[in-house]
Amino acid sequence: MSNWIAVDWGTSNLRVWLVGNDGTILDNRSSDRGMGSLAPEDFEGVLVELVADWLGEGVTEAVACGMIGARQGWVEAPYAAVPCRPSQNQSIDAPCADPRLSVRILPGLSQTTPAPDVMRGEETQVAGFLAANPRFDGVVCLPGTHTKWVQVSAKEVVGFQTYMTGEMFALLSKQSVLRHSLGGKEWDQAAFIEALDDMLSHPAGLGTQLFKLRAAELLLGQASGIARAKLSGMLIGLELAGARSFWLGQNIALIGDAALCKNYAVALEHQGVPTRIVDATEMTLAGLTAAYLHNKDACHEP
Amino acid sequence: MSNWIAVDWGTSNLRVWLVGNDGTILDNRSSDRGMGSLAPEDFEGVLVELVADWLGEGVTEAVACGMIGARQGWVEAPYAAVPCRPSQNQSIDAPCADPRLSVRILPGLSQTTPAPDVMRGEETQVAGFLAANPRFDGVVCLPGTHTKWVQVSAKEVVGFQTYMTGEMFALLSKQSVLRHSLGGKEWDQAAFIEALDDMLSHPAGLGTQLFKLRAAELLLGQASGIARAKLSGMLIGLELAGARSFWLGQNIALIGDAALCKNYAVALEHQGVPTRIVDATEMTLAGLTAAYLHNKDACHEP
Repeated sequence: MSNWIAVDWGTSNLRVWLVGNDGTILDNRSSDRGMGSLAPEDFEGVLVELVADWLGEGVTEAVACGMIGARQGWVEAPYAAVPCRPSQNQSIDAPCADPRLSVRILPGLSQTTPAPDVMRGEETQVAGFLAANPRFDGVVCLPGTHTKWVQVSAKEVVGFQTYMTGEMFALLSKQSVLRHSLGGKEWDQAAFIEALDDMLSHPAGLGTQLFKLRAAELLLGQASGIARAKLSGMLIGLELAGARSFWLGQNIALIGDAALCKNYAVALEHQGVPTRIVDATEMTLAGLTAAYLHNKDACHEP
Repeated sequence: MSNWIAVDWGTSNLRVWLVGNDGTILDNRSSDRGMGSLAPEDFEGVLVELVADWLGEGVTEAVACGMIGARQGWVEAPYAAVPCRPSQNQSIDAPCADPRLSVRILPGLSQTTPAPDVMRGEETQVAGFLAANPRFDGVVCLPGTHTKWVQVSAKEVVGFQTYMTGEMFALLSKQSVLRHSLGGKEWDQAAFIEALDDMLSHPAGLGTQLFKLRAAELLLGQASGIARAKLSGMLIGLELAGARSFWLGQNIALIGDAALCKNYAVALEHQGVPTRIVDATEMTLAGLTAAYLHNKDACHEP
């Protein structure tokens, strides 16, 4: 066993780690050349350029997760259907002309019942979490642009549900009429909790609560830090109202951006649900490692 | 009394009509120079250019409604507080160097209880509707980017509520990840009704229903006409769930874009609520006329 390369290639970013044969991280780099801005024929060149000096005489293996495996990515890695163990799904070889590199792409997960849903990238973070917590039985929540709630049992992903909460917050706070009323970075925690409680108990109110953020600024001079926290509280509140079956009476592990996870932790703890926050980058690396090792073991089977 | 000019000046567009002293429309024009793209010093020039050949020896009066009276407009026309008669509020003279033109801007409406809310432009359409239907007692709904539900009684606007339904539809269908799954113009009416019913009975489901539009296309090849109609049904359904106190057991008059009003009419009639659709442009003109005539009468009072 020699060094290998862990690759997290999403829509907006590319991150790579050089991993030694004992699991030590020897080096890491990142680039803004996400798959969203690249054509299929670009992928190999971008990756080779970023890791050129990590390549040696023989073939270096790379294991990649994320949107790179989507239909518009390097090569499509068809979704693995749940229930399944997220580190043990069939990876796909990416076409690679450079003889120094062999690239495998991990598939995302799909679900058809009770409702159609998909993920790409988060399954690898769940795999990493399960590598460190093999006996975990509960729910992993991955807050982000598209927040995922993932039911885990007996090392398998049993089911999941996606919420566009992060994307809605970005669109409403940056591109809607509300942008005038919630610029800046201020944050009023009491307003966050109030909006959260309000939406949890009355989710139908979302439509009218949104415009109130604008009207309250125009008429009452409401501060942007209040409006900003209220919008976040409303959208997370609506999400929690919808995802109740995922968190009620559960253990929740949160994986994602630290500040965003903290908001979810506060929101859930306010409902009496205990949470723990787990580092997202560590989980991605642990998941890529689990997939790499699983494949190694599989190749050595008699 | 001589000719006068009716002006509807919104964020994106400017429309003007030359009105004869008997109320006949003698001419009309429009321009894409909405207030959103203009600085305060531009307004007079833009209007004079558009109506130059309508101006004569004496002073021609113009009456304007819409976002032109916002803080970022020509001159701020402070909101009139409800309850009030929407055609009888104090207008503001816009600063005008050209001696041939005198411009008055109608104020929008504001409400502080039960919740802060504002409107600019729709109050003039409501005024026009009341000029034609002085005994109307019920609710006027004005679907649009920001849909307004307006409670009317004894010729007054008693209260109102704003929903960002149109803006949410535009953001989600054109700028979110859902844009990949609902392009085109197709429309599946059964899917609209199904999503509407679903959201009315379970508004907390909005968060997860949204991403399902994407997943159902990826996994099941759901047609864009179904996804498009479902998104509209969901958002109008969420609005109806929140605005229930405005439509339950009421007479509803719908004023706005004809195709959009038809969706609201179908949705409301599906809940057993009778509606009628009223032409938006006619109501704007009738409202500007009512305000013009009210001012004339007021000036002639002893």
